Amino acid sequence: MKRRAFLAATAATAAATMSGCTREMIEGKKGPAVSRRKKVTLKIATSWPAHFPIMGTGVEWFAQEVKKLSGGTLIVKVYPKNILVPALAVFDAASGGQIDGFHSGPYYWKGKNPAFALFSGLPLGMNATELVCWMEYGGGYMLWRELYARYNLYPFMGGNTGVQMGGWFRKPIKSLADLKGLKMRIPGLGGEVMARLGVNPILLPAGEIYTALERGTIDATEWVGPALDISMGFYKVAPYYYTGWHEPGSVLELTFNKARFDRLCEEHKAIIATTAKAMNTRMYHEFMDQNARALKQLQQKGIHVRHFPQTVTEAAKKAVAEVVAEQSKQSADFKRVYASMAEYYKLIRPWDDLSEGHYLQIR
Amino acid sequence: MKRRAFLAATAATAAATMSGCTREMIEGKKGPAVSRRKKVTLKIATSWPAHFPIMGTGVEWFAQEVKKLSGGTLIVKVYPKNILVPALAVFDAASGGQIDGFHSGPYYWKGKNPAFALFSGLPLGMNATELVCWMEYGGGYMLWRELYARYNLYPFMGGNTGVQMGGWFRKPIKSLADLKGLKMRIPGLGGEVMARLGVNPILLPAGEIYTALERGTIDATEWVGPALDISMGFYKVAPYYYTGWHEPGSVLELTFNKARFDRLCEEHKAIIATTAKAMNTRMYHEFMDQNARALKQLQQKGIHVRHFPQTVTEAAKKAVAEVVAEQSKQSADFKRVYASMAEYYKLIRPWDDLSEGHYLQIR
Repeated sequence: MKRRAFLAATAATAAATMSGCTREMIEGKKGPAVSRRKKVTLKIATSWPAHFPIMGTGVEWFAQEVKKLSGGTLIVKVYPKNILVPALAVFDAASGGQIDGFHSGPYYWKGKNPAFALFSGLPLGMNATELVCWMEYGGGYMLWRELYARYNLYPFMGGNTGVQMGGWFRKPIKSLADLKGLKMRIPGLGGEVMARLGVNPILLPAGEIYTALERGTIDATEWVGPALDISMGFYKVAPYYYTGWHEPGSVLELTFNKARFDRLCEEHKAIIATTAKAMNTRMYHEFMDQNARALKQLQQKGIHVRHFPQTVTEAAKKAVAEVVAEQSKQSADFKRVYASMAEYYKLIRPWDDLSEGHYLQIR
Repeated sequence: MKRRAFLAATAATAAATMSGCTREMIEGKKGPAVSRRKKVTLKIATSWPAHFPIMGTGVEWFAQEVKKLSGGTLIVKVYPKNILVPALAVFDAASGGQIDGFHSGPYYWKGKNPAFALFSGLPLGMNATELVCWMEYGGGYMLWRELYARYNLYPFMGGNTGVQMGGWFRKPIKSLADLKGLKMRIPGLGGEVMARLGVNPILLPAGEIYTALERGTIDATEWVGPALDISMGFYKVAPYYYTGWHEPGSVLELTFNKARFDRLCEEHKAIIATTAKAMNTRMYHEFMDQNARALKQLQQKGIHVRHFPQTVTEAAKKAVAEVVAEQSKQSADFKRVYASMAEYYKLIRPWDDLSEGHYLQIR
């Protein structure tokens, strides 16, 4: 045991030296202590284009802050998609150590483990605030770290889109029947739920959606919310804009190569963790603000904001339960993460409904 | 101009030296740059008892984080109320430089400037999320800094309680008439609104509320929410627990003596600003979680959770408008801050109602 402890301590020292992250406190004979640190650089890639609004610029803000907080000793270089690695290769690249980390969304990696989709949230489940609470106080973050550690990754919450809109439709949806056979661009769990409602979910690259919608090759598309949707121009060809339930608060991620993160000194680790917390909430608030501004502009352009009929929402609830049951059978990890989510949801929902939910109705 | 720039630069250097916050980047001939900082200690007082749940422990978390992020070069010593100064003397003490900063709530200082109450929020106005958005993207924080600068103070948002509960009542409120002549412990703008609804608002020290409620000296009291209310025991003597509208998301503050803050080096300033952002959201989420847990416990004790009748809420809306009109006449600052709030509310509310508000109803 002692030998093992010694070896561990030696390894830690070696790792600290390797990372160039040594730090010493010199108690001067006169005057206060002085701390010194060496400079470390981390390369992270995102799944977004350069300076992508809110998500991309939020990560750039993170990098600026980290530089300031560390007195220039911790430099995060942010690379947009396709510069170092393709948009959806960031997980593997960080896992293998080709890059030090990435900014993306955990639902993109459900092919690796179906449970990963849950860390982004669940259709008709917890909203942004409740998901943070589950992560911090309900065991969600511990599960996420545990499952990502298998891939040599160390995740942080990296922002939240808030409630995403249900999508743009060429024609209004007046009943559940109107969804049957509809071709809609909608990925992820939302797409699986929609498929059970009769929709034909289509995957299309971002650059092809507008034309497909304009030509009627597809009948509908979801994207994110007013702030990011407006520049896509969907409102020109599919003016029925439906409120959302399929992504009620999608958690984004700022994830690091675990071995690389572990080698950072405590000070740099703390700077990353706290700045990530600030970025996480900052992105959520910026989405709220930018969505509000874009909604106003869209309404001036004459779009029709609609709610899905209640029959659609109720059918979607049943479909979510089916998808969850199926995935839980196929994956023990999914079952375990969902159980943690479901237990916390039972706790947090009554309070959120009674406080925020009721207040938004009566004010 | 050049002379002025030179003097400003000299003053900045002098200030940096005075604060013991010098920092130098040494570009080594080999290997990475090294940064050094000297140690600074800040004393901040709170308006709360020692280790007060969420609000007090949240500030302690802030101090721990700041120490970690700064590699032990920035030490924040947190003093609970009445150790350095009385709970409500913290504003003057920080303004005058007897302490370096404080954690409290801006509505406590409305006697100094009625506009300060607005930085905590407005009855039936913006909720926690919307208030952060107003501060960050709607000009609220700039106004707050400007008005506090007159007192040599530099504020940060320092947490948020979320929607506070309407209070504990000995008897149910079935109509507006049931409020007439009711003696209720309720301070601030909420009290002023309640007074216009016929309530007799009473101010009582925390330690005397339970006995007054038990003996019927008062008929009702508001406090905060389940998490902090449960330990006060109000549920034993006033079991009707009403949902809230009078404090829909009270902003707390972490405020520093401005001259002291200005003397910090950029690195320490950034550490404080970013850690305050993280603390601000952390406290809100911890309130959500702890309120949810306490609500469950309270319901097991057999309390009656009720909503005020709609006539009460509608009368309260009119009363808020009256209070705002009156205060705007008396104070140009109040008028200006309220105008900024009202303009942003018009922008953010439609989106929040359409996304979070609608989603919480249909899920």
